[in-house]
Amino acid sequence: MSLLVVGTIAFDSVETPYDRREQTLGGSATHFAHAAAHFGPVRLLGIVGEDFPDEHMTGFKQRAIDCAGVEIAKGGKTFAWGGRYEADWNTRHTLFTDLNVLEKFVPKVPVEHKATEYVFLANGTPSVQMQALEQIEKPRLVVADTMNLWIDIAKGDLLEVLKKVDGVVLNDEEARMLTDEPNLIRAARKVLELGPSFIILKKGEHGAFLIGQDDLHFALPAYPVGEVVDPTGAGDSFAGGFMGYLSSVKNTQPHTLRRAMLYGTVTASFCVEGFGVDSQVSRSRSDVESRYNELASICTL
Amino acid sequence: MSLLVVGTIAFDSVETPYDRREQTLGGSATHFAHAAAHFGPVRLLGIVGEDFPDEHMTGFKQRAIDCAGVEIAKGGKTFAWGGRYEADWNTRHTLFTDLNVLEKFVPKVPVEHKATEYVFLANGTPSVQMQALEQIEKPRLVVADTMNLWIDIAKGDLLEVLKKVDGVVLNDEEARMLTDEPNLIRAARKVLELGPSFIILKKGEHGAFLIGQDDLHFALPAYPVGEVVDPTGAGDSFAGGFMGYLSSVKNTQPHTLRRAMLYGTVTASFCVEGFGVDSQVSRSRSDVESRYNELASICTL
Repeated sequence: MSLLVVGTIAFDSVETPYDRREQTLGGSATHFAHAAAHFGPVRLLGIVGEDFPDEHMTGFKQRAIDCAGVEIAKGGKTFAWGGRYEADWNTRHTLFTDLNVLEKFVPKVPVEHKATEYVFLANGTPSVQMQALEQIEKPRLVVADTMNLWIDIAKGDLLEVLKKVDGVVLNDEEARMLTDEPNLIRAARKVLELGPSFIILKKGEHGAFLIGQDDLHFALPAYPVGEVVDPTGAGDSFAGGFMGYLSSVKNTQPHTLRRAMLYGTVTASFCVEGFGVDSQVSRSRSDVESRYNELASICTL
Repeated sequence: MSLLVVGTIAFDSVETPYDRREQTLGGSATHFAHAAAHFGPVRLLGIVGEDFPDEHMTGFKQRAIDCAGVEIAKGGKTFAWGGRYEADWNTRHTLFTDLNVLEKFVPKVPVEHKATEYVFLANGTPSVQMQALEQIEKPRLVVADTMNLWIDIAKGDLLEVLKKVDGVVLNDEEARMLTDEPNLIRAARKVLELGPSFIILKKGEHGAFLIGQDDLHFALPAYPVGEVVDPTGAGDSFAGGFMGYLSSVKNTQPHTLRRAMLYGTVTASFCVEGFGVDSQVSRSRSDVESRYNELASICTL
């Protein structure tokens, strides 16, 4: 298998109703990579500043996350984000966004990573997603994530990206924004007309839908986590489990996509049980399998 | 099979973002009965006024809903409720509640209905639920619904009801209110300590959970309805499909409860596709089966 992710690597400062954490390792590509790493090696494409601690780099490498594509910008500071969650966990306030090195990020795919089969364009500017994708030679499956900000300020670029991908990950609000269609199922069908052959609709604590052409349609609940610690990165971790599993089994048949949705649900559940990637990296592949089986039993007739 | 429901029979006036309807047939027992009627005969226990049209009585009888337990209060007016939904469908404002004949309702179970095996205590005052239940001889399975109002003003009576039932139907807000526990899964576990052996957690457009003792745990999404017309009665219709199916197969094994959850999801989806019970009564048993199969394919690995 070969799997590459391009996206952000960040310092996150998070306040929850119960606790807070400063400068924890975060970012869309980080969460994706650590979730996907349960299933095999991952190629990470991103940028950090000189302030990025060696321990995080070591952490990546220990989990077979190849950092050849991680640029360390001289004199630069790592992208930093701060946010606060309200008691319902669904309302998130961004407290600050310091783009820092991200501002001038031009992704450079290392020569040895150009022939990657599975590619995930994690949340980031659509132009960076496109620049990264253009350097990959004949990828087998490309999936993109995005966010409301890019739908607002870079919709043209985003539409170009959507033409080039096989799948897209959206939450319900993003699907509605992108299509001006309030009904979620109809919104999903409109997204499919923009290019992707499937869409993963994330509904947070309410699970996720997979909707594709040819009547591909799968719905599953979130894993019922006993104690949410920090939901930051749950969507990226879902995508990491989804793509990690797909790339490990090397097929994209409907039943494989369904299983991949369960694996994504499992890695998302690990993510929210700790700050940053703390809980994800503490889990073994056998933890993944045992929670997969538990989830399957919850969802199976 | 024998299945009895006690609850309200009402005139509903509903405003949605797209349409409105005055004095349509509604009420918790009405929605339950018409949903359960797909699976076999239903015994209806409730009260109406002299203004209650014959056509609704005929409508019940045509679907083998036995109205021997429906009292027609002389000179009284039928319970009436008015509500308005906001564009998100989740926010509902009650515009008026005219209790009318409901104010002095004392349920009288007809002699021929006292030996009922399956009993549903639809939303209504806990004291009426208890009075009805006490008249049933050795029921095999009793399930109760309730609402935030009774948790607020009649919690003591409600707790007494909960001691006597096998199952309870709650939405997430009610489960949290009843237990003072914000985490939904922990709230459900606390509800189980109050008496019921299983709880159905309704999450509206996000589906439902079944949580019981002995690790019984099942989660399923809502059926993805293309066009919501009126969500009033969806929860009662869910319960109707759930109990109707259970009483028709006469067992309460975990796999039967799971199937019953799917049937409940199907009858709830029919409910929301029309005002009042319009869509529910227009559907045949074969419509139920075909949507069941569609839903099963959406949820199956």
